[in-house]
Amino acid sequence: MNETACMPTGPRPHGATPDDGYGALLRDAHAAGPRRGTHLQIIERDDGFVSIEDAYRYFTRPDEWLPVERQAVALATGRVLDIGCAAGRHMLALTGDHETVGLDPSPGAVAVAREQGLDVRIGTVTEPGDVGTFDTLLMLGGNLGLLGSREHAPDVLDSLTRLARPDARLLAIGHDPHTAAPEHRAYHQRNRECGRMPGQVRMRVRYKTWTSEWFDRLLLSPDELRHLLTGSAWTLQTATRSPGTGFYLAELTCNP
Amino acid sequence: MNETACMPTGPRPHGATPDDGYGALLRDAHAAGPRRGTHLQIIERDDGFVSIEDAYRYFTRPDEWLPVERQAVALATGRVLDIGCAAGRHMLALTGDHETVGLDPSPGAVAVAREQGLDVRIGTVTEPGDVGTFDTLLMLGGNLGLLGSREHAPDVLDSLTRLARPDARLLAIGHDPHTAAPEHRAYHQRNRECGRMPGQVRMRVRYKTWTSEWFDRLLLSPDELRHLLTGSAWTLQTATRSPGTGFYLAELTCNP
Repeated sequence: MNETACMPTGPRPHGATPDDGYGALLRDAHAAGPRRGTHLQIIERDDGFVSIEDAYRYFTRPDEWLPVERQAVALATGRVLDIGCAAGRHMLALTGDHETVGLDPSPGAVAVAREQGLDVRIGTVTEPGDVGTFDTLLMLGGNLGLLGSREHAPDVLDSLTRLARPDARLLAIGHDPHTAAPEHRAYHQRNRECGRMPGQVRMRVRYKTWTSEWFDRLLLSPDELRHLLTGSAWTLQTATRSPGTGFYLAELTCNP
Repeated sequence: MNETACMPTGPRPHGATPDDGYGALLRDAHAAGPRRGTHLQIIERDDGFVSIEDAYRYFTRPDEWLPVERQAVALATGRVLDIGCAAGRHMLALTGDHETVGLDPSPGAVAVAREQGLDVRIGTVTEPGDVGTFDTLLMLGGNLGLLGSREHAPDVLDSLTRLARPDARLLAIGHDPHTAAPEHRAYHQRNRECGRMPGQVRMRVRYKTWTSEWFDRLLLSPDELRHLLTGSAWTLQTATRSPGTGFYLAELTCNP
């Protein structure tokens, strides 16, 4: 009998592919041929709230997207960077007129995107590597949440500025937490009591035995975004809400 | 700023309805009108493996079941006890010829079953309350797993004996762990190294902010079941496998 083996171990990063349960999910879904309901990941919030996300969303076609996501892709011009591109669904929809580069921190996601013929590099918004500068920066699929927190957002905005060519635009999909179901309001209130923005969500994702590290995703309203941009090079020009959802398309311009 | 509120709390039983996340899931699914993919619960194994179960399974009709489940219901005779009946899907399929009582530990599940006109009491196989004796004992939907472990099984079998009338039959759906996907084999091997039966699965269920206590569910082959029955009043008469799945219908008779 092996005493160590008998201790409950609890969730932990997988030994072979640390912190890339997300990549494993995308690889598995891609290999199986993406269909709804077959590959699901778990999103665990730090108060114990659990929800489920279907990997199929990472393989959807434009006609399955929210209109604001289609609109964002249609507005892209020039050299385009898709930040947090996952398997590259938005890049696939960009026509050949654009030179498009994708960034994602997940080796598994990058592998799946490359299998689809896309130019995707391992990197994050604050550690993009040597990708150059862009006319359009995309943060789609809710990736405005990569702002992370009130404290982290300036680093993200500064990095975006370094990636921006003159007259660059940032097209980002945000999620307004103030439209959320009542069951989430206690979480927002706890954040307020802790001096955080209400929509700062500390979460990790789980898939099979893989568990990511905890990270922060920032849900914020267009007004909160405008306030957060103070002192940065970025200006919110328009926020187009997606009716019946909390999502909106934010168009920002850069004046460094 | 409230320091206590800022501590990560992690999963915990919900204050208002401790350990009845399962009941909340069934109540929510029933209230919404059961459909596939709308209400999901998370099953978390003690090694961190997570999987997802669709609450729709608790509201399926006989034509959606495995044939062995239909067969079990067709074999029921006399006064019937459905142990771990959930929302009562098997009880609903039993014709009016039977007096049928259901048992479930979840107040939420019992409430949903009662809304469907069923005689369901709060209780478990080892704490059934004053329900009398039965000609047929049902442990369907994989509920043979309520045997729990090698150590717990004798208590379950003794309780079943006390619930059994002369010539009573136990009809139970088991799950053979030796048919499982390779990703589960390390878990079975760890169990063996700890002196446990390979299919003893320590798990808890999570739904939204609710988290159950940890409990053991015993997956075992018909041969392992036969061995486990030694010294009990129960004899395995037949084990009918469900092709392409790990499930089987076990028919047991009682000779106290």
